[in-house]
Amino acid sequence: MTTTTSRDVQLAKRPVGMPNNDDFQVIEAAVAAPTAGQIQVRNLCMSVDPYMRGRMVDRKSYVPPFQIGETLTGGCIGVVEASEHADFKVGDHVESMYGWREAYTEDAAGITNLGAKLDAPASAYLGVLGMPGMTAYVGLLGAAELKDGETVFVSGAAGAVGSIVGQIAKLKGCHVLGSAGNPEKVALLTDELGFDYGFDYHNADLVAQLREGAPKGLDVYFDNVGAEHLQAALMCMRQFGRVALCGAIAQYNDTEPRPGPNNLAMAIGLGLTLRGFIVSHYDHMRADFRREMTGWVTSGEIKYRETTFDGIDKAGEAFKGLFTGANTGKMIVNI
Amino acid sequence: MTTTTSRDVQLAKRPVGMPNNDDFQVIEAAVAAPTAGQIQVRNLCMSVDPYMRGRMVDRKSYVPPFQIGETLTGGCIGVVEASEHADFKVGDHVESMYGWREAYTEDAAGITNLGAKLDAPASAYLGVLGMPGMTAYVGLLGAAELKDGETVFVSGAAGAVGSIVGQIAKLKGCHVLGSAGNPEKVALLTDELGFDYGFDYHNADLVAQLREGAPKGLDVYFDNVGAEHLQAALMCMRQFGRVALCGAIAQYNDTEPRPGPNNLAMAIGLGLTLRGFIVSHYDHMRADFRREMTGWVTSGEIKYRETTFDGIDKAGEAFKGLFTGANTGKMIVNI
Repeated sequence: MTTTTSRDVQLAKRPVGMPNNDDFQVIEAAVAAPTAGQIQVRNLCMSVDPYMRGRMVDRKSYVPPFQIGETLTGGCIGVVEASEHADFKVGDHVESMYGWREAYTEDAAGITNLGAKLDAPASAYLGVLGMPGMTAYVGLLGAAELKDGETVFVSGAAGAVGSIVGQIAKLKGCHVLGSAGNPEKVALLTDELGFDYGFDYHNADLVAQLREGAPKGLDVYFDNVGAEHLQAALMCMRQFGRVALCGAIAQYNDTEPRPGPNNLAMAIGLGLTLRGFIVSHYDHMRADFRREMTGWVTSGEIKYRETTFDGIDKAGEAFKGLFTGANTGKMIVNI
Repeated sequence: MTTTTSRDVQLAKRPVGMPNNDDFQVIEAAVAAPTAGQIQVRNLCMSVDPYMRGRMVDRKSYVPPFQIGETLTGGCIGVVEASEHADFKVGDHVESMYGWREAYTEDAAGITNLGAKLDAPASAYLGVLGMPGMTAYVGLLGAAELKDGETVFVSGAAGAVGSIVGQIAKLKGCHVLGSAGNPEKVALLTDELGFDYGFDYHNADLVAQLREGAPKGLDVYFDNVGAEHLQAALMCMRQFGRVALCGAIAQYNDTEPRPGPNNLAMAIGLGLTLRGFIVSHYDHMRADFRREMTGWVTSGEIKYRETTFDGIDKAGEAFKGLFTGANTGKMIVNI
């Protein structure tokens, strides 16, 4: 039996500032039987990620903007229900960008077959073994050129990317600091994930916290937050330090451009490098990432957390939660 | 006969904002006869450089601050008048940091002997063959990792560093844009120094100028200016572009921290690298610089300009002129 309808989530209008539930609409769509080269998939879970906020604005960015009244896209894991492609069998798990919907029929090209049996729960392929995990891996080892034993600070450290950044750095013998948005998340960092120092950035003197946790300064700052976090980290960098610019979640809902750090000129005397990146810039590291991270996860050397919402109709709420600190680790919508 | 007195320039008080003549004082100092290991030198010319502005403020920086009532220091070229060191003979030319004075007696350690006969006029060793020339060379080939044939923009392009940056980039087959502060300087760039496109940044729409001169965008931006120049260049960078952060002369006289560029997050999607540097970070490139630049200057492949003030009592005025655009090329004080 194959699915014949899917509830899909679309952008009803473009969010201004913080996203709201009424920026999204759920519609019912027909799912056709697959024709030659196509597969029909029922999604198990989907990802909501901060980068999607940028695609909700109608401007040029590194990915094209979402359109009003079209079903949104994003990472998801599903199971094949019908196949007209030789490489995909009914029951295979697949990873694709056809998220924000319960089911779909699409060309198999561009869909990754993960096989009938998974090494980890399906949702892990959207987090630690997927895009956020690879973002952590390539940002730290690629963009920031991490060396063993350095001092590393990561902001948004309880999030899907930050929590992995800190644990990779610990595996490399580093001294690791992390900021998070509430005391429970801070406790997670130091009590469960092995961070050396954690702090709640709310009402904190960021520079004082960094100096407390890293009296000799920072070699690497992995920036998920931007704004005041970036300025404070720059104040604390050591000579030849590197900043990996990964995200600026504090700024994604800004309606006006926000001034940058007022101390960027410190980079001159200290010989600092700030390097922006997105995961696709480091496709050449994908095989290494898959191999190393699968090993670390199955051995328990790297732990991961998830925050889940149930039902496709909760996808908008889950997305908004990324900006209010509702998630610890990866934010997942179970479908 | 040896000198027995020297007019020295000291900081009378710390400048606030733009430096003024009364921030400096000229005093008369005794110059002792050299003892074992020392040499006595009469300066021919001295350098004033933008980085010195930072040392006039009492704050931690990459070089310690100047002290009130102590003779200032800076690059200079002089002639040995008396020597108690075997490696220095009367008549040898020397390069040292004992500038802002007519004469001095100091330990020969840390003083470079350029020999009795120079390959170029003495002042060239303060500019194209000295620190500014090497700053251009290491910033472009080291910090910015220039590749042949790229598109390069340099701000402050008629200055001591910028004018050399542009010419090196042309020797590497690049398409080169430069900004300068008046029409005469812009004409110098395109008519004499071989730049492909020059513009006067006063009252200009910087982004529009950059798009006109580089419709496909910039691979490298060599930043001597900071502020609006940096923000505009970021708007125009191509994927994987590099920004060499060399100076921020537009900001050196600020009395309050100035916000950074409001578009730094563009570095993420484009995979941009911003790297700060000072010349001493690239000491390992010194031999290559001396060899290549001496060749380019003696062959006429690289041209250089100087603006000169005569007399040690004009040093403060020459220094102030760096910030009012009084110089084309290297600012030199003849002593």
